[in-house]
Amino acid sequence: MSSREQVGAWIESTRIQRIIIVLILVNAVTLGLETSSRIMASYGGFLHLLDRVILAAFVAEILLKLFAHGLGFFRRGWNLFDFTVIAIALIPASGPLAVLRALRVLRVLRLVSVSPRLRFVVEALLKALPGIASIASLMLLLFYVAAVIATGLFGTGFPQWFGTLGRSMYTLFQIMTLESWSMGIVRPVMDVHPYAWLFFIPFILIATFTMLNLFIGIIVDTMQTLHDDQHAAERERIEQTVHSDTRAVELEVRALREEIEGLRRDLAMRAKQS
Amino acid sequence: MSSREQVGAWIESTRIQRIIIVLILVNAVTLGLETSSRIMASYGGFLHLLDRVILAAFVAEILLKLFAHGLGFFRRGWNLFDFTVIAIALIPASGPLAVLRALRVLRVLRLVSVSPRLRFVVEALLKALPGIASIASLMLLLFYVAAVIATGLFGTGFPQWFGTLGRSMYTLFQIMTLESWSMGIVRPVMDVHPYAWLFFIPFILIATFTMLNLFIGIIVDTMQTLHDDQHAAERERIEQTVHSDTRAVELEVRALREEIEGLRRDLAMRAKQS
Amino acid sequence: MSSREQVGAWIESTRIQRIIIVLILVNAVTLGLETSSRIMASYGGFLHLLDRVILAAFVAEILLKLFAHGLGFFRRGWNLFDFTVIAIALIPASGPLAVLRALRVLRVLRLVSVSPRLRFVVEALLKALPGIASIASLMLLLFYVAAVIATGLFGTGFPQWFGTLGRSMYTLFQIMTLESWSMGIVRPVMDVHPYAWLFFIPFILIATFTMLNLFIGIIVDTMQTLHDDQHAAERERIEQTVHSDTRAVELEVRALREEIEGLRRDLAMRAKQS
Amino acid sequence: MSSREQVGAWIESTRIQRIIIVLILVNAVTLGLETSSRIMASYGGFLHLLDRVILAAFVAEILLKLFAHGLGFFRRGWNLFDFTVIAIALIPASGPLAVLRALRVLRVLRLVSVSPRLRFVVEALLKALPGIASIASLMLLLFYVAAVIATGLFGTGFPQWFGTLGRSMYTLFQIMTLESWSMGIVRPVMDVHPYAWLFFIPFILIATFTMLNLFIGIIVDTMQTLHDDQHAAERERIEQTVHSDTRAVELEVRALREEIEGLRRDLAMRAKQS
Repeated sequence: MSSREQVGAWIESTRIQRIIIVLILVNAVTLGLETSSRIMASYGGFLHLLDRVILAAFVAEILLKLFAHGLGFFRRGWNLFDFTVIAIALIPASGPLAVLRALRVLRVLRLVSVSPRLRFVVEALLKALPGIASIASLMLLLFYVAAVIATGLFGTGFPQWFGTLGRSMYTLFQIMTLESWSMGIVRPVMDVHPYAWLFFIPFILIATFTMLNLFIGIIVDTMQTLHDDQHAAERERIEQTVHSDTRAVELEVRALREEIEGLRRDLAMRAKQS
Repeated sequence: MSSREQVGAWIESTRIQRIIIVLILVNAVTLGLETSSRIMASYGGFLHLLDRVILAAFVAEILLKLFAHGLGFFRRGWNLFDFTVIAIALIPASGPLAVLRALRVLRVLRLVSVSPRLRFVVEALLKALPGIASIASLMLLLFYVAAVIATGLFGTGFPQWFGTLGRSMYTLFQIMTLESWSMGIVRPVMDVHPYAWLFFIPFILIATFTMLNLFIGIIVDTMQTLHDDQHAAERERIEQTVHSDTRAVELEVRALREEIEGLRRDLAMRAKQS
Repeated sequence: MSSREQVGAWIESTRIQRIIIVLILVNAVTLGLETSSRIMASYGGFLHLLDRVILAAFVAEILLKLFAHGLGFFRRGWNLFDFTVIAIALIPASGPLAVLRALRVLRVLRLVSVSPRLRFVVEALLKALPGIASIASLMLLLFYVAAVIATGLFGTGFPQWFGTLGRSMYTLFQIMTLESWSMGIVRPVMDVHPYAWLFFIPFILIATFTMLNLFIGIIVDTMQTLHDDQHAAERERIEQTVHSDTRAVELEVRALREEIEGLRRDLAMRAKQS
Repeated sequence: MSSREQVGAWIESTRIQRIIIVLILVNAVTLGLETSSRIMASYGGFLHLLDRVILAAFVAEILLKLFAHGLGFFRRGWNLFDFTVIAIALIPASGPLAVLRALRVLRVLRLVSVSPRLRFVVEALLKALPGIASIASLMLLLFYVAAVIATGLFGTGFPQWFGTLGRSMYTLFQIMTLESWSMGIVRPVMDVHPYAWLFFIPFILIATFTMLNLFIGIIVDTMQTLHDDQHAAERERIEQTVHSDTRAVELEVRALREEIEGLRRDLAMRAKQS
């Protein structure tokens, strides 16, 4: 076992992984506490120190894994995920990148990559995505076309909602979630364009119907996979029963054949004797 | 091959269809950019020109297809769709028809008719429609009756919501989507008619229950179709197993029969010899 | 055939039923037109006359059916429904009963009782109800308990929402539909009772989870019924295949047996001859 | 039968349980009436007395059950539930615990523990919980991380919504229910942080997609259990058919074998005779 393999085995040992989980949980708490300015006033220094120590531990873990696996490290999706959330914390968050400070907490999501059960759930969720790719791209096309139409029709009258393509897409997304679609958006628009409902009601019907089918698609896909396995198992059990039953008949028939062969031999012998 | 067929084969060749897809995508971008007055101020002339060139290409494509297939062209639903969205762009959009300018972007939906995958998704969505026709017409009847009642009861007090049959239907649609139904509509109405909830709460319960069943209907239908195919396939595999297994027994029995026939012949021969 | 039976057969003949459907549709239109004061100003007299003539036809239909079937008429649910919606139109709608005028349009719902397809859909919807009776009564209990608690806790501070048991139930229903639950109700309440979310968030979670299960219950029930029929059909087809296959083997074996019996007879005969 | 067992049998007899149900229903009514200050002004004394008498009966019931079963009483979940809701009513509700007065009505929920049908429904609902534990904990993690980010990004600008971790979690829960998410929260936030939608739209998509999968998980689980039973039953019936059919063939073959054995014996006998 090379030193690389030894390091890899050590860093992925249950004991070290458990320590990592504890560190993530502690880090989750400290990052939560850091949102309170009252607590930061009293314990800010200690929390920052703790945060840095834990971050250092995470960086060390990743560096050791990188040493152990080389570039193969990046071939596993979850490793890439870990690398990214740690990297975010290392970028100096000042000036235009100050927003990254708030994203440091993303490293708490590493709880998913270190816990097999959560990892399984997330992988199951992601597995549903390819099945909905076509319907999602149809949805996107619909959104784009509707946004261009809405911008053209209502852009000048309601610039805050439909002034640009982006605003129209945001507003249409809001309408699709049915949030304040009528009292907030469509009724005011209809005061200026009385026939605006001819655009919005079909949009709502088509969008929700498409979303509904996306949803049904996932249900049906999930049950499909389960049923396929189940049915195959049931079929195999039936086939085994059939096999073993007919096998019994076959053996019976074979025994019969031997019986007859015996009979034939008897007769042949007797014929010779006579 | 007639010149018509040659034209038809050429226009539907993969190469030409790929060019059409690229033109649609370029057109989608230009129509999107045209919504920005800042961009239009700088590049308006160029965008308009590009738009006209692409439209000309689409018109040429449809004319060639019309030449190739004659009136048979209109027999295919997707051709009718293409024809309509292109025709919209050719109507001079001025005066009361100015709204048609905004609908020019509908031609981007041709992406659906040229992409087999999106076409399949849309066809699947449309296939769900006949199955929900009865429940949808029941819903419509319910809406009409509820709108007449609401107009009669609340029309004079709340003309902006229930003043006419059309407004009542719109408001009831809003209530069915649960958007601001209580704080926006029913609570104000209840300030005047304290028992208005006796109309609105049952309406919400019946409408959402019916919608729910419409939804369940689609799920069950979809799974039905899938299961039918699946079960038939499973059944066939079981039947094949049974067939081949019993066939084995049958062959065994047949072999036995020949054995016995052989025995009979032996005996017959021996009988003759003796 | 008695005169009663003749009347019964005549009133339920396809021709008369078609006339009734046409009358219902015409009535639907006139009742819709009556909501417009502009149309009523010009054609009010004519519409009222038409309305009375159609109502008279409906009354005559029901009286003839009553004559034909006697009290057995009321044994069928749909007849009771027809009787009720017609009776509503006959009650003099003045004074405190003026609201009944608005309910005259309910007679348009007779379209459901005369159309076999719509009747089937409504019966299917009603069939789902017994299956959800237990969960609905649990929901009601939950609502009652939550309403008493809410009235006790928030009644004095927010009399318009939680002042009486009835208002609390209405407000909790609104919260369950998620309409303005936070911005409209819970945030204002939390300004006075900061821990109000400890009541409302669990209420929302429990209520929506229970509703969800009610919904799942209907889906599973519907699919159950369908699958039972389907699986039984599949099973029967498999069993038939097995039957006919093993039957073939059985016949083969029986033929073999006859063969052997023939052989035995041959031997026996030969034995006698020798 | 010891006196303990006699007491246990008596308190759990149908007659006593029916009296308890009646008392709970009466108590439900009195606790409802107590919310009305008008009724309390006239009948307050009587209602309080009745309430105390019924509470005494419940306490007596629980004490007798405790006597009958000893500490084994607490082993059953529903007993613990009864004990808790009665105990709440006995705590002196004054000072900071005044809120407990409003919770006295929880004892009406005992209707669930005494009605086998409602108990069954609740147990079915609870059974669905372990299956969604992993996805719920993922949801919680997501909420925590999103709340920390939101507090960091928007806490200073919108202290009423994102000022503390708790407020952020509450606001994100509201956003997940889609209540006023855009008009109420995100649009005002976007006036200050124009790119806030980059946080909120993905949050909504991920949160609703995860909730959707939680929902699908319950449907699939429920159907799974049902199907497993059903399929096993179908399979057994098919296997039985196969068994009995092949058994028929086997018997036929066995009869054939005896026939041949008879033949052999005949021949052997004849051989001896000759």
